[in-house]
Amino acid sequence: MNEPQRARRPGGRSARVGAQVHQAVTELVSERGYGNFTVGEVAARAEVADSSIYRRWGSLESLLTDVALTRLNTQSPMPDTGSLDGDLRTYAAQVAREITGPDGPAVLHLAVALSGSGRQGLEAGNALRAERTRQLESMLDRARERGEHSPDALDVLDHVLAPMYIRVLFGMGPLTPDYVDGLVDRLLQDRQAPFG
Amino acid sequence: MNEPQRARRPGGRSARVGAQVHQAVTELVSERGYGNFTVGEVAARAEVADSSIYRRWGSLESLLTDVALTRLNTQSPMPDTGSLDGDLRTYAAQVAREITGPDGPAVLHLAVALSGSGRQGLEAGNALRAERTRQLESMLDRARERGEHSPDALDVLDHVLAPMYIRVLFGMGPLTPDYVDGLVDRLLQDRQAPFG
Repeated sequence: MNEPQRARRPGGRSARVGAQVHQAVTELVSERGYGNFTVGEVAARAEVADSSIYRRWGSLESLLTDVALTRLNTQSPMPDTGSLDGDLRTYAAQVAREITGPDGPAVLHLAVALSGSGRQGLEAGNALRAERTRQLESMLDRARERGEHSPDALDVLDHVLAPMYIRVLFGMGPLTPDYVDGLVDRLLQDRQAPFG
Repeated sequence: MNEPQRARRPGGRSARVGAQVHQAVTELVSERGYGNFTVGEVAARAEVADSSIYRRWGSLESLLTDVALTRLNTQSPMPDTGSLDGDLRTYAAQVAREITGPDGPAVLHLAVALSGSGRQGLEAGNALRAERTRQLESMLDRARERGEHSPDALDVLDHVLAPMYIRVLFGMGPLTPDYVDGLVDRLLQDRQAPFG
């Protein structure tokens, strides 16, 4: 269906369409999981025309990425506590809260599903991670500028984020504060030891 | 469609149906990804009746789990090299090879998708992991019986398997032997240090 002709009011209308579409995607992901709905169903739920979605986002994959990134950035801005230890603990606790929240698992499944859904999805998934990695690297760079010995972003991924992601993806119970802090302890401790 | 009546030859026919159905699932998962096909499509591809699949596996979820477990157990039996170090390195290298192989990512996406697909999928995913965890624990128990100081199965999951899984799930390049060995080094090194 085509969108009916109407006078353009870019500010209000565009923001409203954006919010409705984001809300519709979040609901559909949490009800059905990623990949089990179409642009048409998002459009119907959001009460906008399919063409509005294609014009603005181009594809379901980039819409899903936009939704996931927006959620991450509004719910979990990167911390800046003044110390690496504080930043990492705050960040790890935020991620834990986010991925175990009401629709956290859905967002995580989405990120994973994107990577498994062909080239377009892979690119969308890469864009999603690139932005988050850039933010994490800024945090680690600030620590280096203060003279702190900082791990690489990939070490944070491997030993703090990956264990939490996998436990949530596999439905393996809650991420307790002790567990999350233990992952950071281990990373900070390893940082001081030489590796072969 | 109902399966035509015919004389039962449980051994040969049952094994043949099993192999055809497993092959059909593996192909469909690698072509379309998990969740994008039905029992009917598996049956058509395998040239068996839908009812044969339901009678034997009960649901698509438990069929998918059976296929994934069979693959794991035939392609990657748990190593028994006589030392924890040898066992862990062999195991990690096997897992890396398996999840980066031709349809490894599909199997990994399947395991993740199962957990995200409601109660039946979650149970199937749990069954899949429970069997693999049992095998891993036997390996670690053997090390303890030899007097070696052995990590927990969950530490192996968090610091060796999870980083590899996430890198493959996110499409983040190859798992080099150096990278995989580095994960084991780190785990074995940590094992000797006390944690808070």
